[in-house]
Amino acid sequence: MDIEQFRKAGYQAIDRICDYYYSLQNRPVISKVEPGYLKQHLPLTAPEKGEDFQVIADDYQKFIVPGLTHWQHPSFFGYFPTACTFEGIIAELYATSTSNPGFNWTSSPACTELEALVMDWAAQLLGLSAAFLNSSGIGGGSLQTTASDSALISVVAARSLYQQTHPDAKLEDLVIYTTTQTHSLGLKAGLVLGLSVRALEVKSEDRFSLKGETLRIALEEDEKQGKKPFILIATVGTTSSGAIDNLPEIKAVVKDHPSLWIHVDAAWAGVAMSCPENREKCFLNEINEFANSFCTNFHKWGLVNFDASTLWVRNRKHLTDALDVTPPFLRSTHGDAGTVIDYRNWHLALGRRFRSLKLWFVLRSFGAEGFRAYIRRTIALNQQFADFIATSDILSLVTPPSLALSVFRIEPKRNSPDQVALSTESLNSLNRLFYGRISARDDILLTQTVLNGVHCIRFAVGAARTESSHIQAACDLLHTEAKLAIEAWEPTTTEDSK
Amino acid sequence: MDIEQFRKAGYQAIDRICDYYYSLQNRPVISKVEPGYLKQHLPLTAPEKGEDFQVIADDYQKFIVPGLTHWQHPSFFGYFPTACTFEGIIAELYATSTSNPGFNWTSSPACTELEALVMDWAAQLLGLSAAFLNSSGIGGGSLQTTASDSALISVVAARSLYQQTHPDAKLEDLVIYTTTQTHSLGLKAGLVLGLSVRALEVKSEDRFSLKGETLRIALEEDEKQGKKPFILIATVGTTSSGAIDNLPEIKAVVKDHPSLWIHVDAAWAGVAMSCPENREKCFLNEINEFANSFCTNFHKWGLVNFDASTLWVRNRKHLTDALDVTPPFLRSTHGDAGTVIDYRNWHLALGRRFRSLKLWFVLRSFGAEGFRAYIRRTIALNQQFADFIATSDILSLVTPPSLALSVFRIEPKRNSPDQVALSTESLNSLNRLFYGRISARDDILLTQTVLNGVHCIRFAVGAARTESSHIQAACDLLHTEAKLAIEAWEPTTTEDSK
Repeated sequence: MDIEQFRKAGYQAIDRICDYYYSLQNRPVISKVEPGYLKQHLPLTAPEKGEDFQVIADDYQKFIVPGLTHWQHPSFFGYFPTACTFEGIIAELYATSTSNPGFNWTSSPACTELEALVMDWAAQLLGLSAAFLNSSGIGGGSLQTTASDSALISVVAARSLYQQTHPDAKLEDLVIYTTTQTHSLGLKAGLVLGLSVRALEVKSEDRFSLKGETLRIALEEDEKQGKKPFILIATVGTTSSGAIDNLPEIKAVVKDHPSLWIHVDAAWAGVAMSCPENREKCFLNEINEFANSFCTNFHKWGLVNFDASTLWVRNRKHLTDALDVTPPFLRSTHGDAGTVIDYRNWHLALGRRFRSLKLWFVLRSFGAEGFRAYIRRTIALNQQFADFIATSDILSLVTPPSLALSVFRIEPKRNSPDQVALSTESLNSLNRLFYGRISARDDILLTQTVLNGVHCIRFAVGAARTESSHIQAACDLLHTEAKLAIEAWEPTTTEDSK
Repeated sequence: MDIEQFRKAGYQAIDRICDYYYSLQNRPVISKVEPGYLKQHLPLTAPEKGEDFQVIADDYQKFIVPGLTHWQHPSFFGYFPTACTFEGIIAELYATSTSNPGFNWTSSPACTELEALVMDWAAQLLGLSAAFLNSSGIGGGSLQTTASDSALISVVAARSLYQQTHPDAKLEDLVIYTTTQTHSLGLKAGLVLGLSVRALEVKSEDRFSLKGETLRIALEEDEKQGKKPFILIATVGTTSSGAIDNLPEIKAVVKDHPSLWIHVDAAWAGVAMSCPENREKCFLNEINEFANSFCTNFHKWGLVNFDASTLWVRNRKHLTDALDVTPPFLRSTHGDAGTVIDYRNWHLALGRRFRSLKLWFVLRSFGAEGFRAYIRRTIALNQQFADFIATSDILSLVTPPSLALSVFRIEPKRNSPDQVALSTESLNSLNRLFYGRISARDDILLTQTVLNGVHCIRFAVGAARTESSHIQAACDLLHTEAKLAIEAWEPTTTEDSK
């Protein structure tokens, strides 16, 4: 493809993306293809001769788009949102147009310098303390692919620091602490590193938040047995229910256990701290006072296209001590002099994409004000949903709404005091049926979860095009499906038939 | 930004990318900015009010482009090339336009299905055996970010398998084998995982290729001491000199050490196997016969925009056994039934970008024929360079050219038999001066390396716009700079002045 053919194909791609967004809300949210659909349409080997690009571009529309789940659809309430803004798209377009893997300063100075700068913008937007800024020269921030990578890097840095200060500690004795509500990234870090993971219990009555006392007891138990807990992955906004671990209590415990690294995973909820009114409930003060590392994903609720996981550390030396490898072919004058950041020593790989461009475009185009307005709007939309649940006689919230996430289930209100409540097991069975009905539809997407044995359904707001009308439509749909589920449900136990 | 504003900004971005490529060869290759340049131009915090997108787009041209090193410049001969094709750019544009993190089949079926399919296309293009194809149902391929990630995942899978079969093995005793010429990814995997790395010696007379005997002796030594070597990262095409480890000899050794996992890192050279004439020297047969995992980066020399590291494993179960985490909120009907690939269990993170789209666009637009033609053209350009060095009276190749890479240095030919050769130390000092001169220029980019104590310079061909005329210009420039370096050089030892 030559330059003029690219111009033509590029304009067409832009036009088709416009068409996509004009038509998006009329499409099904969920792809209804069956496993193996694509190989019915495409050959099993690459073509020998090059094909006309128009055919390829048309095949994208014909075969790929119908197989996409539309995460940007206004009725997408599943998982957590994954951001996609026009500013982000254009930034990615510019970034890939020069395709340079800015692994160190010399390999492309702008990549490093923009990342260092906009990570400071982002830190200040969220209210992080100056200690985390790149301009501090001690702490600093970098863009990772996902929160899993950010957590893994933090665990590696923590392990490396722990081994430095405890040279006799055996890998077999090291323990990563999470809670039973921590994202699978905790367990995965353990699998990748071959280290034990202990998931601390959290309780429904504490809204699934880790209590300081639980941590203290676990530390004492493990230390007595010669185990070496060296990091706690605490969460601000868990995936299942948006729970926020009790950082003030954890802080008090850590005073007596100073070698426990605290990584705060706020993958989803962290961007909410851009609004001052959310900072206290997200424990910003405590994060600033004692977290060793902090992660939030701007690519979830933060308007920056996937991937854009922001990771800050209080001491960059803990990263570079753990990850620095400098072979001769990567040495450079400025790197040797230590006057520049070489981001390759702040992440797992060597090369990295120019991700900071999209963060820069988004923060400038929206401004801090526009960013906060977006966060507030989605929280208000979730409140609209939670208000509907509160007035429903068949649906109940399982926990209070957390920012832009509600967790609910069918739980018919008792009409009279002598009506017997359904057992957990029966309610679970009813709610599985309910979820089965919802997930069979293609005009809405929600995901399910289990909270300490309770089967429930998540409603996560955040797709940029979701309006109040989509929330209302979702409420109506869920009410109808819940009624139908109750009607269709066949109680199987004696108790159920009461 | 609304849809029509996006159309306008998108067209402009496409136009500006066209302008960039029209002007590219007249730009300096290397950015001449000084550390800290960007913060002179940009504020230290995000703007409070949103800015007009035209201002932002203009600032990209004004402040970012001058700080880029132009990896696509026809006179870029540093590191290894990083691919950037128009097909790849458009694929990335489509991929980011829906921003869906296809972590499992259900989350966006097309992402998984296209990846499974085009990884089979790519495997067949390179001549990999059917055992590595996704269609085999046993082996399989996936797209990772970089060769570092691919190697790390392979080490994790190998460690997990080794621990399953050797339940008493302590992490402290496990050893990762590399050679002294293995990319830093080997050492980094060791750092990340907290495992020992032993770099086996390779010799100049073996062209820096690992011999079977070296491996056999190391295995015997380590096993005698209770160490547990569990993986060898062998290289086909090392970074420093394009060396290819002796896989036939390694295969013979591994027969007696069946629990040693062989990961073949062909990050740069692997795509050359698309041409049948390169397969024997890259030991394709041996890779097919006994490698447990194989990686090449299509984003280097393979026309697919960064990032696109392709990783194949002989047994996908070794990946999923090591990496599978399935919390309730990620369970799905098809996933539970095992009828689909859930790629989240094939890599480190959870979410992943839709990378297969660019591999698909590139392979279709070029066709296998066009892909091979590109590989052959770059090898021929490197041969042109190597031929020039062969006729030079002051420059010499340090090793025979390897595919599209030449490694050379100043080494004046002796005019008479009684003229004394310069010592290694003197030649190193002269070549450092020479490289200093080259790297001070902004119209060419080469990188340096050290091969068993010998300071030398790499010339890696592969930028898509490099023509014979650019090679000729590079030859002329290097000849001139070498002469000037020799003139400017002040021998400091008695021997040097002979």
